[in-house]
Amino acid sequence: MGRSRLEAFSDGVFAVAITLLALDLTVAGPEGTGSLTDQLQEKWPAFLAYLISFFMIGVIWVNHHALIRQVTKVNRTLLFLNLVLLLFVVLIPFSTAIVADYFSRHNWDTRVAMMIYGGVFLGMSAAFGAIFEWTLHGERMYQPLPPEQHWPARVRFVSGGLIYLAAIVIALVSDVASFVLIAVTAVYYVFERTPSSPGASDGGDEEQPVT
Amino acid sequence: MGRSRLEAFSDGVFAVAITLLALDLTVAGPEGTGSLTDQLQEKWPAFLAYLISFFMIGVIWVNHHALIRQVTKVNRTLLFLNLVLLLFVVLIPFSTAIVADYFSRHNWDTRVAMMIYGGVFLGMSAAFGAIFEWTLHGERMYQPLPPEQHWPARVRFVSGGLIYLAAIVIALVSDVASFVLIAVTAVYYVFERTPSSPGASDGGDEEQPVT
Amino acid sequence: MGRSRLEAFSDGVFAVAITLLALDLTVAGPEGTGSLTDQLQEKWPAFLAYLISFFMIGVIWVNHHALIRQVTKVNRTLLFLNLVLLLFVVLIPFSTAIVADYFSRHNWDTRVAMMIYGGVFLGMSAAFGAIFEWTLHGERMYQPLPPEQHWPARVRFVSGGLIYLAAIVIALVSDVASFVLIAVTAVYYVFERTPSSPGASDGGDEEQPVT
Amino acid sequence: MGRSRLEAFSDGVFAVAITLLALDLTVAGPEGTGSLTDQLQEKWPAFLAYLISFFMIGVIWVNHHALIRQVTKVNRTLLFLNLVLLLFVVLIPFSTAIVADYFSRHNWDTRVAMMIYGGVFLGMSAAFGAIFEWTLHGERMYQPLPPEQHWPARVRFVSGGLIYLAAIVIALVSDVASFVLIAVTAVYYVFERTPSSPGASDGGDEEQPVT
Repeated sequence: MGRSRLEAFSDGVFAVAITLLALDLTVAGPEGTGSLTDQLQEKWPAFLAYLISFFMIGVIWVNHHALIRQVTKVNRTLLFLNLVLLLFVVLIPFSTAIVADYFSRHNWDTRVAMMIYGGVFLGMSAAFGAIFEWTLHGERMYQPLPPEQHWPARVRFVSGGLIYLAAIVIALVSDVASFVLIAVTAVYYVFERTPSSPGASDGGDEEQPVT
Repeated sequence: MGRSRLEAFSDGVFAVAITLLALDLTVAGPEGTGSLTDQLQEKWPAFLAYLISFFMIGVIWVNHHALIRQVTKVNRTLLFLNLVLLLFVVLIPFSTAIVADYFSRHNWDTRVAMMIYGGVFLGMSAAFGAIFEWTLHGERMYQPLPPEQHWPARVRFVSGGLIYLAAIVIALVSDVASFVLIAVTAVYYVFERTPSSPGASDGGDEEQPVT
Repeated sequence: MGRSRLEAFSDGVFAVAITLLALDLTVAGPEGTGSLTDQLQEKWPAFLAYLISFFMIGVIWVNHHALIRQVTKVNRTLLFLNLVLLLFVVLIPFSTAIVADYFSRHNWDTRVAMMIYGGVFLGMSAAFGAIFEWTLHGERMYQPLPPEQHWPARVRFVSGGLIYLAAIVIALVSDVASFVLIAVTAVYYVFERTPSSPGASDGGDEEQPVT
Repeated sequence: MGRSRLEAFSDGVFAVAITLLALDLTVAGPEGTGSLTDQLQEKWPAFLAYLISFFMIGVIWVNHHALIRQVTKVNRTLLFLNLVLLLFVVLIPFSTAIVADYFSRHNWDTRVAMMIYGGVFLGMSAAFGAIFEWTLHGERMYQPLPPEQHWPARVRFVSGGLIYLAAIVIALVSDVASFVLIAVTAVYYVFERTPSSPGASDGGDEEQPVT
């Protein structure tokens, strides 16, 4: 099983999922009630959720590539873990659509929607963590992480997951606070430059020769 | 006709089909009847069918790659057989949506839906078997299967197809039993490690150098 | 402009278009009128049109690849001609859906639908012919077609286009006859082995080493 | 972070976005009011908008490739800028659908629709300009643009953006004039041969060896 086709298939899924996000950006059109401006204004949570989910998928794709290009050997376990990761990636347009649909209600349903939104990101984060854990064992990386960095890296991963878990718990009380937490996390990931962050072994913004 | 573009096209179709699966995961939204939780609970067969079909497509993709990377020569017959395989892969979101729509009814329509669901997997299995058969003749593989393993491999393939045939026949009597059989088959394929299984010539969970 | 990315982009469009075909295969579901079997039976033109369009896109993809892999130099004219080809490929799911919607009516609208269906294939055929014509000039092919074969090849191309033109004209009188003509053409292309057919320079069913 | 996977992911997004454009080309079908010919005639703005957006995405894809293949080093800033570009590419089917829906109204909503249509192209143009600006600094290109050409190139880029800005401003007064301006721009870009245009360093229609 070559790494290149694992990447090609994953890239395809990432590309389709990120593009399908925009399918939920629809307006009722001239037959609907209200002017186009009104319809768009009502839809602002859909646009915001689109933006957040777009960059979330983008960040996962960047990290996925940074990690997988280090992999020396592909086996069925990695393929399966990768499928689980993609399973959650593919669910992002669905969870984004639910948030967009229910956001302006600010009732219990909105909070359930936010829990699902956070839950899909939590699942994705867990699957990515499992792939990372897989890379730590055996001689599976070209440049293996030194053993003394395993636990710090794991702690960082669990912290990432804890943010999504916090967003889920906070959604029980406030959908807005939960949404803000996930939005801030997305912005943080986009601008994050920590060279030592897992999957960012290409040294943050250091430039890398093309491979 | 290069193998690489056959793989690229097939990967694209697999990636789009696996992502389109999630398009059927929709809820009626705030305008629909019932809370979001109710709507999601009613939709559980859709989620379960999504999960099964997702891993089915994932497994086919893994096996497709394991088989095609062994192919030394691409001809029009292989391209045609591959198209037939993709024809059934592309039908999976459709058959999954039908099962999801009719599952909770438990009437004759549900059984018809299960027969279609099993039928699409049967067609896919037959097309994959035909590609495998094609690889057995001529010098079409880098590491051809020894002749004495041809019949055992064929028997395994026919067995796989017989499971889907059984699921179709069982659906005449019980849609639930048919669904459980296909679900168990999906789980089996995901966790299967048999190194000698056709298309799994990369040795189950043995690690393989990246090519 | 590398050929590899031209192929990658084209493969992506072919893969998405062939998969989107199946999006039109929907049934009204339990809320619709009639049993699932009835709904599926009513939909048979959709399934037949899906089948024909699927293999048409498949055949174009095969021929596209066979032609493009021979190209030594990529310029803006080729990119533009390729975009025009893809424009028609992307229209195939649309024209297929129209035929599927109107086929069982057998009225003037059905004939208009068939004219659109044939028209999209005609446009595609013309665009492919233009790409082929482009390859005949300059030193644009690794194995250029000998000059004495230029006119026979052009005649074959125009013949192909004439079939679609005939299908459009016949649709003025009989939608069924037009549909049968296109269906027969699709079957012919799938099983065609003519080694000298343009774009099939890989010798029909002769086996080719993997490149 | 290899350039090849940046290209693969971007190609996937371009391919899906260009194919999704056609999803908006639907007719009400036999249940709708009016004959198929009437329905198609009413839909002509959708077809025209489809055509324009198709070639716009095609042109961006060509320019994107011409620019990225020159890049020697990929860093997180480029990945982020590329994501922003793709964000606008993915919005094109949405803005195209809005124009198609509102075009025949010729009221304020149509002008808002045209402003959104122009706005998405403006955003895309700005993101592409930012990527181009990024390539000017450090040793990021195999064949860096000579310093004395930096400002002329920037002026050309800003001019391109100014056209979209003009289309947005003109839309305040006339939706038709705004639409014509964007249509003319699309046609211009398709037939443009300026060898010195940024991202067209492959020399307009000069033929390039395949890489």
